[in-house]
Amino acid sequence: MISIQEVSSAKGKLTTVEDANLHLRNNPNGCTVHEALAPIVFIGQLFSLMPINGYFRKPVSKLKFTLKSLRFVYSCLTTLIMSAIISMFLAYRIHRGTIGLGATATFIYYAVTIMAMIEFIILAHNWPSIMQRWTGDEQLFLFYPYETGKCLPLDSLVKRVAFTMFFFAFVEDTINFISAYQLNVVHMKYCPHASDFWRNFFRREHPYIVRFIPYHPVLGVAIEATMRVAKFTWHYMDVFIICVSLALQRRFEQYNDRIRSFNGNQQPQEVWRALRLNFLRLSELVTYLDTKLSRIILLSCANDMFFISVQLYNIFDPKQTVVTTFYYWYSLLFLISRCFTMLYVSSSIYETSLKPLELLRDFATSSWNLDLQRLLDHVSLKSIAFSGKRFFFITRPLILAMAGTIITYELVLLDQVAKDQDTTKDCDF
Amino acid sequence: MISIQEVSSAKGKLTTVEDANLHLRNNPNGCTVHEALAPIVFIGQLFSLMPINGYFRKPVSKLKFTLKSLRFVYSCLTTLIMSAIISMFLAYRIHRGTIGLGATATFIYYAVTIMAMIEFIILAHNWPSIMQRWTGDEQLFLFYPYETGKCLPLDSLVKRVAFTMFFFAFVEDTINFISAYQLNVVHMKYCPHASDFWRNFFRREHPYIVRFIPYHPVLGVAIEATMRVAKFTWHYMDVFIICVSLALQRRFEQYNDRIRSFNGNQQPQEVWRALRLNFLRLSELVTYLDTKLSRIILLSCANDMFFISVQLYNIFDPKQTVVTTFYYWYSLLFLISRCFTMLYVSSSIYETSLKPLELLRDFATSSWNLDLQRLLDHVSLKSIAFSGKRFFFITRPLILAMAGTIITYELVLLDQVAKDQDTTKDCDF
Amino acid sequence: MISIQEVSSAKGKLTTVEDANLHLRNNPNGCTVHEALAPIVFIGQLFSLMPINGYFRKPVSKLKFTLKSLRFVYSCLTTLIMSAIISMFLAYRIHRGTIGLGATATFIYYAVTIMAMIEFIILAHNWPSIMQRWTGDEQLFLFYPYETGKCLPLDSLVKRVAFTMFFFAFVEDTINFISAYQLNVVHMKYCPHASDFWRNFFRREHPYIVRFIPYHPVLGVAIEATMRVAKFTWHYMDVFIICVSLALQRRFEQYNDRIRSFNGNQQPQEVWRALRLNFLRLSELVTYLDTKLSRIILLSCANDMFFISVQLYNIFDPKQTVVTTFYYWYSLLFLISRCFTMLYVSSSIYETSLKPLELLRDFATSSWNLDLQRLLDHVSLKSIAFSGKRFFFITRPLILAMAGTIITYELVLLDQVAKDQDTTKDCDF
Amino acid sequence: MISIQEVSSAKGKLTTVEDANLHLRNNPNGCTVHEALAPIVFIGQLFSLMPINGYFRKPVSKLKFTLKSLRFVYSCLTTLIMSAIISMFLAYRIHRGTIGLGATATFIYYAVTIMAMIEFIILAHNWPSIMQRWTGDEQLFLFYPYETGKCLPLDSLVKRVAFTMFFFAFVEDTINFISAYQLNVVHMKYCPHASDFWRNFFRREHPYIVRFIPYHPVLGVAIEATMRVAKFTWHYMDVFIICVSLALQRRFEQYNDRIRSFNGNQQPQEVWRALRLNFLRLSELVTYLDTKLSRIILLSCANDMFFISVQLYNIFDPKQTVVTTFYYWYSLLFLISRCFTMLYVSSSIYETSLKPLELLRDFATSSWNLDLQRLLDHVSLKSIAFSGKRFFFITRPLILAMAGTIITYELVLLDQVAKDQDTTKDCDF
Repeated sequence: MISIQEVSSAKGKLTTVEDANLHLRNNPNGCTVHEALAPIVFIGQLFSLMPINGYFRKPVSKLKFTLKSLRFVYSCLTTLIMSAIISMFLAYRIHRGTIGLGATATFIYYAVTIMAMIEFIILAHNWPSIMQRWTGDEQLFLFYPYETGKCLPLDSLVKRVAFTMFFFAFVEDTINFISAYQLNVVHMKYCPHASDFWRNFFRREHPYIVRFIPYHPVLGVAIEATMRVAKFTWHYMDVFIICVSLALQRRFEQYNDRIRSFNGNQQPQEVWRALRLNFLRLSELVTYLDTKLSRIILLSCANDMFFISVQLYNIFDPKQTVVTTFYYWYSLLFLISRCFTMLYVSSSIYETSLKPLELLRDFATSSWNLDLQRLLDHVSLKSIAFSGKRFFFITRPLILAMAGTIITYELVLLDQVAKDQDTTKDCDF
Repeated sequence: MISIQEVSSAKGKLTTVEDANLHLRNNPNGCTVHEALAPIVFIGQLFSLMPINGYFRKPVSKLKFTLKSLRFVYSCLTTLIMSAIISMFLAYRIHRGTIGLGATATFIYYAVTIMAMIEFIILAHNWPSIMQRWTGDEQLFLFYPYETGKCLPLDSLVKRVAFTMFFFAFVEDTINFISAYQLNVVHMKYCPHASDFWRNFFRREHPYIVRFIPYHPVLGVAIEATMRVAKFTWHYMDVFIICVSLALQRRFEQYNDRIRSFNGNQQPQEVWRALRLNFLRLSELVTYLDTKLSRIILLSCANDMFFISVQLYNIFDPKQTVVTTFYYWYSLLFLISRCFTMLYVSSSIYETSLKPLELLRDFATSSWNLDLQRLLDHVSLKSIAFSGKRFFFITRPLILAMAGTIITYELVLLDQVAKDQDTTKDCDF
Repeated sequence: MISIQEVSSAKGKLTTVEDANLHLRNNPNGCTVHEALAPIVFIGQLFSLMPINGYFRKPVSKLKFTLKSLRFVYSCLTTLIMSAIISMFLAYRIHRGTIGLGATATFIYYAVTIMAMIEFIILAHNWPSIMQRWTGDEQLFLFYPYETGKCLPLDSLVKRVAFTMFFFAFVEDTINFISAYQLNVVHMKYCPHASDFWRNFFRREHPYIVRFIPYHPVLGVAIEATMRVAKFTWHYMDVFIICVSLALQRRFEQYNDRIRSFNGNQQPQEVWRALRLNFLRLSELVTYLDTKLSRIILLSCANDMFFISVQLYNIFDPKQTVVTTFYYWYSLLFLISRCFTMLYVSSSIYETSLKPLELLRDFATSSWNLDLQRLLDHVSLKSIAFSGKRFFFITRPLILAMAGTIITYELVLLDQVAKDQDTTKDCDF
Repeated sequence: MISIQEVSSAKGKLTTVEDANLHLRNNPNGCTVHEALAPIVFIGQLFSLMPINGYFRKPVSKLKFTLKSLRFVYSCLTTLIMSAIISMFLAYRIHRGTIGLGATATFIYYAVTIMAMIEFIILAHNWPSIMQRWTGDEQLFLFYPYETGKCLPLDSLVKRVAFTMFFFAFVEDTINFISAYQLNVVHMKYCPHASDFWRNFFRREHPYIVRFIPYHPVLGVAIEATMRVAKFTWHYMDVFIICVSLALQRRFEQYNDRIRSFNGNQQPQEVWRALRLNFLRLSELVTYLDTKLSRIILLSCANDMFFISVQLYNIFDPKQTVVTTFYYWYSLLFLISRCFTMLYVSSSIYETSLKPLELLRDFATSSWNLDLQRLLDHVSLKSIAFSGKRFFFITRPLILAMAGTIITYELVLLDQVAKDQDTTKDCDF
């Protein structure tokens, strides 16, 4: 009978004897990932990402992805506008015939943004089934014998981390605008022919658009707004991965806490059997989420590495205004912190998943059994971690390797590539 | 009795009880690798590679490598002409005394081509025994209980992938010719003394041959044809590895599908015993093929890495004609895609071979047995992957490492080595 | 009964039957880590580090960290003065607007020093509980059946290694002073306006302080003294890690010696059970210490790597006096030796912890048991080593990787960054 | 009784029952390592290395290291002369005050030579005990059931490999001399004041000696002879490691052949027990030899990497004579081949030691036992390979890593460091 129960619970059905017992207890000791991630999805939707309905409703089955929703239209619209902008940019650059580091960076920035937008639409499409599986798999962890312990509830943690990030992103955007404003002032002073302040502002920021569409204040505001929305995608990718990782890591911590709570005392074999299956569920959940998210992870890591290199490379150039200097330093530090946080939190999944290896050593040999041995093999034989399409696994040493690579690239680039010219002295448009 | 059956089937003989049962079923659920690879061998023979007879005939024993065949003569002839060309090139360069990056790249290109031609002759010589072993080992997978599932039949898949590659290679060759034609037009305009268009064309493309053999239209066509044949060798190496990898990976997928089809239900020990032996056969087949192919793999990887570096380095030079610019970009992108596809498909062998590690976790501890444990150890203890003479194993992280290395080299090379001069302005021959 | 004993001793309580037997024996065969590290703590306190009381008293419970002690005030004072100095330095540099490699190096040097000072205050705060645990865990190793063998007693070893290091550090400081003195002589000769020797000396060494505070001999001596104290922090970090590692490694060696002393003879299962638990204690101790020390380790490694790179980069510059040249070479060699010793000794923990893997092979299969197997798994499955916040583990290959990285950086930097100018020819202050 | 036999044979005593049986068979199927390495030791002694007596006598106990032998005096004398030369060189260079890449390379060349000479004296001192242990451990492999198979006897193999190497080294030396001779001819023509051909030759080759000791033909010949002897040390290091590796690898191959000869048939448990112990002996022998040889290995690898980098860097400089050009290319290719052979052969120890992992899979689960499992763990858990002081293990991927590192260094160095000047145009001595 034990084996039947075991097999069926391994199959993910919630109707086994053990689960039935769990359902008798009424108070979940924490919120589901569905509830915890809802505010993050909401913020994303404000900026045209994750077009999904019903994410604030309680049974996870209320989640729906429909093509006929305003959110989806909004997402598509932004993606299309960005595609138009990147086409204009490319046409403009090919026509001018010069491709410097600055132009390449801008092109990659736009391309990554559009790819991320598309990835988030695909993710939104998969989101209902992802949430269905995830909430099913984590059900166990919301009830006794698992406990959430003394730490911050998952939803509060996710909210705090995400909103701190979004706040710094908002500050960055503001400083960016002030810097562009002041550079425009400098430019207006230098070039006498420029008359309309905002027209000039728009021309400086988006010369490739002006080439194809005549300037109009409404157009200016629309494009500028789309740009801000697009830039948010950039930050959102990292924040999204952070929040998902926090939710996953929490479950592993609960798991470890439970083993720790045994205090090395002997447990009946059924307990170990159930524990092994719980770990199996968690690790399969990580593998499943990895297949769904790893394109976004790969995009985010590549993107962060590229822009940290570019920003580091630009940081020592003299800037025209104090605000611009401050903006560059702020932006670089924020970028590095955001990327580091993302990698650190993601790598913590791996670190916490390894913990049972140590915890199981405290149990006496006299009550050692095959389930314990298999659990040990499970933990040790294969990395349970987020990956970038399995090209790399996000672990602590990876962070060091990335940092080392960036430093090497930076040292090599020093004095090598010709710098872009000062654009405030360029009056030929 | 079980042990006898086990041992003998481990020895690769097909006359055991289990195999006898299999032979009773008449309908194979897929084609053999012999049938799947036949069109690839055929295409190779058009371009003087893989001089083997009987590769389209059904029993694999019809495969023959004979020295007295036209194919073998064709292969040897091309190899000899290429050897003559490389000797003339070397003599010409040593005499001129300048060895730039361009000349080195050309030399390495010729050398790799000749080495690849010789490797394919050696491979053709071994092909009958390789196919004998491979079809023997995969026999099991063509019959119940293994299934091919819903995916594309192996022969169609191989054909589609290979012919897509060959199509792009053909397009590259065509653009290359148009580019060379147009550069010759530009050169003819610039240098007044040049009279005969095709003579000048030949002189520009192969100055080292003109030095030793007087130009004649027949010679020009013959050399040009040989060159195209030789260039094909370059593409063929990668495509061949891709097709072999696809065929191998398919078997591992079938294996995983079968374990998956158990749905975690208990199986009798004999089933696991047989499964372990099947896996053993597959992994020994990979090891065997690796010893036969790894020189070609090593050559192909080294070659691809070198030429990606060289092409990336040349891409930012100004080009004389639009077609030339387009050719360089097309050629670089094709090269990168081809190399990436080759590495990605090869690394998939490793990825699929690791899958049982996860799948075996779904089976209950109560029916765990030594064969399962040994199977687990087998999967985890040693990489089952193609390698470059065991200097490296083709896995996903390797692809990242290669990309990182190329980027480092490229950054270091920027502005360092003196560029080759524009040859359309060089009228001294 | 056995399992109860086992579990409780795994919990670290010393009142089990086995331990009771041990306590009957009166002569410990070595000193505790508390006694061995006391002189190191004492030296640290001379230079304002590790503000802790009672470290020379025998029961480890006499250790106290109190805010109202003179030592703590001394530590805080030095930290505050250094913070003031770094603020002045930063203000001075931002005002001057130039940030060369020299200024960056000085800034990082001050920042690392302050961070290290704070880390040592935090460590001092944790020291009583660390020592309590450590002495508890190593209690076993001070009595039969463990022996210290023929090697140097731990306290002597620690003293010798540490004082050798401190002696070389003192010599470095002296040569540094002589070099600065002679450079000042050269400068005084070159710039006629300089009148007061020591005022000029101070101005040359600390221009950023003179900018904010008028020079006074007392101030000069005070700042110079603080600087020497601060510089000691730099050396102390490495020496501290060395001593802690020596103490840990000694326990692993004793453990290995005990297994070796069995000469491959069969032991009762209880012995192996106890041995497994002893190893568990040691490895958990390493993990515990790693969480407490890894910020200091990370700081120390980053610091050493950065300064080895900087010093190597500066070594080939022409120097004004012979003493200065000698100082640079001495300083570089001392820095490399100190860093290498630190890494080598730390990596020895890992090396010695791996030894049981080999030693256990000598025991006959007939008496093999689960405890032996678990011990083997324990040793092999997870690195028992000091780490830098788990970004890297200190092992032998890491040392090679660090050396390789430094060489790469150095080669890349050659001729790249503009060198700082000769300051003895600079009379404008 | 079995366990006693097992334990005692694990202890390395040859008087057990099993060994007694072996001694009844009279014909060893191969030579001992003592006999195989004797010619290599002899060649070394011609060039003042390995000062040991009795290496050609049959019982290994005849080997003696005595301080009062002519060989030892010869070794010490060469070492002393080289030390004198390096001192003169250093004094000369410090006095001239210029330290270019050429001077640094020469200094490192001399330093490595002296260190290698000292290492070989130390090795000679340890040689009797090393040989005693090694011949003891390999005794088993000389008799049935182990066979040497169809491959070349060990002594012939070692002789062929070593003498091929020495022949190429001799050719290199000859070309080197011819090149130096011709450069001297060119120099004599260019600088009219030079009168005595050999005096000038000596001055050009060893200016730092001429500075301290007046030239005399006898001195010239003596110094030149010492130089040739010293240069041989350089080649000898690699050849010695190759021969030792070949001898070790052969034993692992015999071991694998024996397992292979079982054809997957069931064996009694005693056979597996004995086989595990035999493998244990071999792997402990590798570990033992590694502790004795790894300083030489580290020296040799560092040396080879450094000089490959330097020679690659120098190869594209224009040379004064054709022989010099040829010498540089020959020397570079020989250096790379020698280094590659050394690494490849050494890494083969690791590769062959991994083989049982695959071979053991062929044995049926029904006769699986603990000894087989332990043997499997033994093979998989720890690298059985030569190492450079455990900073790195010599494996195939290491060779690739080294090659990659050299290429990176080379690319970085291109155009960076100022080249040494043409010395044939320098008449100022």
